[in-house]
Amino acid sequence: MTRTTVPVHVRWSDIDGYGHVNNAAMLTLLEDARIAAFWSHDLPDEGARSTQVLAAGPGAASVTLVARQEIEYLAPLPYSQRPVLVDLWIGRIGGASLDVCYEVNGPQGVCARAMSSMVMVDAASGSPRRLTETERAALAPLLEEPITFRRR
Amino acid sequence: MTRTTVPVHVRWSDIDGYGHVNNAAMLTLLEDARIAAFWSHDLPDEGARSTQVLAAGPGAASVTLVARQEIEYLAPLPYSQRPVLVDLWIGRIGGASLDVCYEVNGPQGVCARAMSSMVMVDAASGSPRRLTETERAALAPLLEEPITFRRR
Amino acid sequence: MTRTTVPVHVRWSDIDGYGHVNNAAMLTLLEDARIAAFWSHDLPDEGARSTQVLAAGPGAASVTLVARQEIEYLAPLPYSQRPVLVDLWIGRIGGASLDVCYEVNGPQGVCARAMSSMVMVDAASGSPRRLTETERAALAPLLEEPITFRRR
Amino acid sequence: MTRTTVPVHVRWSDIDGYGHVNNAAMLTLLEDARIAAFWSHDLPDEGARSTQVLAAGPGAASVTLVARQEIEYLAPLPYSQRPVLVDLWIGRIGGASLDVCYEVNGPQGVCARAMSSMVMVDAASGSPRRLTETERAALAPLLEEPITFRRR
Repeated sequence: MTRTTVPVHVRWSDIDGYGHVNNAAMLTLLEDARIAAFWSHDLPDEGARSTQVLAAGPGAASVTLVARQEIEYLAPLPYSQRPVLVDLWIGRIGGASLDVCYEVNGPQGVCARAMSSMVMVDAASGSPRRLTETERAALAPLLEEPITFRRR
Repeated sequence: MTRTTVPVHVRWSDIDGYGHVNNAAMLTLLEDARIAAFWSHDLPDEGARSTQVLAAGPGAASVTLVARQEIEYLAPLPYSQRPVLVDLWIGRIGGASLDVCYEVNGPQGVCARAMSSMVMVDAASGSPRRLTETERAALAPLLEEPITFRRR
Repeated sequence: MTRTTVPVHVRWSDIDGYGHVNNAAMLTLLEDARIAAFWSHDLPDEGARSTQVLAAGPGAASVTLVARQEIEYLAPLPYSQRPVLVDLWIGRIGGASLDVCYEVNGPQGVCARAMSSMVMVDAASGSPRRLTETERAALAPLLEEPITFRRR
Repeated sequence: MTRTTVPVHVRWSDIDGYGHVNNAAMLTLLEDARIAAFWSHDLPDEGARSTQVLAAGPGAASVTLVARQEIEYLAPLPYSQRPVLVDLWIGRIGGASLDVCYEVNGPQGVCARAMSSMVMVDAASGSPRRLTETERAALAPLLEEPITFRRR
């Protein structure tokens, strides 16, 4: 199994007037899951996921920018106090970029499937920077077939 | 020219720790623009855009759900007190669905390009409902080639 | 000790252009903490806090509305992947209302202090409804002196 | 008349599961109104309000921080495509701070009343900085009795 699973928390304010998680708020949930899976901002080393290797966040020498996203919504996600489980894997590792793939598990099964293309950028110069060998080695176990979308 | 242009307002809270409009907040700006372009919730008839024909929003007999979205971010969008101009057109009109295409104009040119597949749903039954002839006639002038993405 | 402590999760999108949790996002964190402390929406009974007795949320017969809030910001709250601990207690229990008091613990100590006056409302009629004896008994252990604000 | 009125735009995503503007989103609307009334970030001089004198926002030498807020919610604010009119005035001008007062006009009358204490801070040093004579002169016409809250 080459995926990782992150619990994310739906906020009451993520619900919109239709009574479900808003379409844009779903992208915020994916961002939450992605950061939990891959960032190593200020978590202590002990207990960190082996995939939390992308130094990013405030003050970091490197930032991770979203270059592209694609998402399909299969079912509305209702409010719950229980965390939502997001499965993540990596669909492509490039020179200075990677594709993160997601499946969001709602109460009735997968409710959203998505992909984000991330670019590593040097914070000082603003230019893309190559993934290090350490980063590649840590992320390689999550490499799997990229997500395929139903409607496209 | 078959596009319509909607000014949308960037909020200070749309900016994230990288100092630009957050990737998910960009989808909120697109939602703002889409609603302004197509919804006929509670605006007075006089002065309404001719394309504001999709009865939607709270209490409406019909709701518009997002089934799929695709977006590419070409440049960071900085905070500004000036509205951001979003160009919208329709890339496809189906039986009970349509594709909305967007270009977001930043200070240096187009900063994001996106597409949302919308499904018309009957609020009472939860089932898709067909676009009416009136809706089709009002939206047809905005029909244009669907957006093509650079990175895909 | 008559307070309860809830860990809440700061999102990357809660940070605004000043590099700290946005002033309105802080109220969202308080809402998160308040719901975790007091709502009994769809959590299983086992493991629930003894104070999670306010039936609220979507589909509930009762809703909890915010009537008033007061907050002072003592220090900026920076982004962190670690949860923020919010201490909550109840400063007043009325007939159909109660005051929730909060202290938000930042990395350097308390960074915000706040109070929310909540009103219990019957969802069907829209009228205030009295707190039940069960609710009062469950909440009484958290009753403490109401928060006093420095600047007022 | 010593108040100014700013139209603010309710977003579909400001509505929460109760079908009204979320309590924290209301503070975002106030922030929108406050910035429109007082900031001089990147608007052209022509057409600017005479009260848009607080240089703030990204890159500015000065930032405006919220030190305290108080708000009472008098009625739920439903979604509307029409702008909400917010009346603003200044309840106090101090050495390095000022109090902004608000009334939010809903469809049935005033739906929220609020006050924000703002502190001017030098961006480089992080220390409070005094309001300039130009700022005081521009803001003085908006000075009025501070808001008094019903429930306190």
